[in-house]
Amino acid sequence: MAKGARVTAAVMIIGDEILSGRTQDTNLNAIARYLATFGVDLVEARVVGDVKAEIIAALNTLRAQCDYVITTGGIGPTHDDITADCVAEAFGVALEEHPEIIAMMVARWPGALNAARRRMARIPVGGSLVKNPVQGPPGFQIGNVFVLAGVPMIMRGMLEDVGPRLRAGAVVIARTVRVEGAGEGVIAAPLEALANRHPDLSLGSYPFFGPEGFGSNLVVRGRDGAEVAATVEELIAALADIGAKSITRVEA
Amino acid sequence: MAKGARVTAAVMIIGDEILSGRTQDTNLNAIARYLATFGVDLVEARVVGDVKAEIIAALNTLRAQCDYVITTGGIGPTHDDITADCVAEAFGVALEEHPEIIAMMVARWPGALNAARRRMARIPVGGSLVKNPVQGPPGFQIGNVFVLAGVPMIMRGMLEDVGPRLRAGAVVIARTVRVEGAGEGVIAAPLEALANRHPDLSLGSYPFFGPEGFGSNLVVRGRDGAEVAATVEELIAALADIGAKSITRVEA
Repeated sequence: MAKGARVTAAVMIIGDEILSGRTQDTNLNAIARYLATFGVDLVEARVVGDVKAEIIAALNTLRAQCDYVITTGGIGPTHDDITADCVAEAFGVALEEHPEIIAMMVARWPGALNAARRRMARIPVGGSLVKNPVQGPPGFQIGNVFVLAGVPMIMRGMLEDVGPRLRAGAVVIARTVRVEGAGEGVIAAPLEALANRHPDLSLGSYPFFGPEGFGSNLVVRGRDGAEVAATVEELIAALADIGAKSITRVEA
Repeated sequence: MAKGARVTAAVMIIGDEILSGRTQDTNLNAIARYLATFGVDLVEARVVGDVKAEIIAALNTLRAQCDYVITTGGIGPTHDDITADCVAEAFGVALEEHPEIIAMMVARWPGALNAARRRMARIPVGGSLVKNPVQGPPGFQIGNVFVLAGVPMIMRGMLEDVGPRLRAGAVVIARTVRVEGAGEGVIAAPLEALANRHPDLSLGSYPFFGPEGFGSNLVVRGRDGAEVAATVEELIAALADIGAKSITRVEA
């Protein structure tokens, strides 16, 4: 998980509502798919509650280990929204009201810019704004950390302003071969042999079961498109060799 | 996040498919809701890829910090399924074929118990089996760590054998008050005042926006049912005081 030629990122999801089970997170999946289009490898995700010391500790660990960290949640106006405070403390800087956000708020709530709303105008000194095209105040970036909203619709809007700031990596190409009527127990040996012949690729097996039958989706992932394509053909031949009947290339 | 009177747990989700965005995790939410019924607080979750050193490091951190750790994923027969190996190494013990699993497999695959399937019969020395009522071999427990499947249907089946082994805590009672047509910016001040008067409770605000309007779900959580109920009434009165018109108690 070291910094290097590969471009890496971690996601930190902040909020008691995820850990209590009240809310099903969908932000991690949206961010993972978004980062993949820039060739950025998501290497870890953490979900932490609304606890200052835990947020700061996790952020400091992840921002040292990865090229980028994206946080979601905890940037609203209520007392349980403590992400900006934690990020400032992690970086050892103060929080300051950003004049651009204050100006947006004056326009949005003329005569009703109360203390709670002003909390959302505070960003760490040295940070820059991340545009919010959806609703409410912007997120922010400081160093290699992007601080986004938790509401999925708003988070996805803010993401659009994150991508252009990333150092892009080589995009990973993934191809899926679906095999039906053959379980992982019989697929495992030829799959492992293939994985051993292609150490630069990642080969995964994701089984399915259900009333419609059983089988597995076999995923070949790598940065060399020709090697991925050739390996898919080798995989299909190996599956035919063990007698698998229903083999399908799944279009992405 | 220390061990103590509160009973705490962490979840560790293992698998490249979650970090690549291929798969939307739902296991975290299912486990969070399940643990809540036993009064066990889920305090952290981590998603790690299929990388041995990272799995071992995260597991050793979490099992020292929490009363329990539940892992999902990586216990199938293919080469990318390395969870059992990692757990054994984290505990410093060997992996051994469990005679009960071998017996199940002989019955399930007469004459076809190959090396890949035998991999799923290995559990760390000193571990015990976690029943799998759905499909395939069992999970296992060693120390305070429960190792479950990644396929959601199977994971949920295995969970039923985890609960009875947990030291139960006092169950958290959560009540939700939904306010429509009033944003968090105006709710924040009375909500914070209420939070300050009830330091043992957790008060959260979860805004919503959409074509049908805007507002927030305000959640009061705590272990003292009488205090939670009284605080809900205080909250409703405080919302009425700031002129909120549409206030509803949401039934759980």
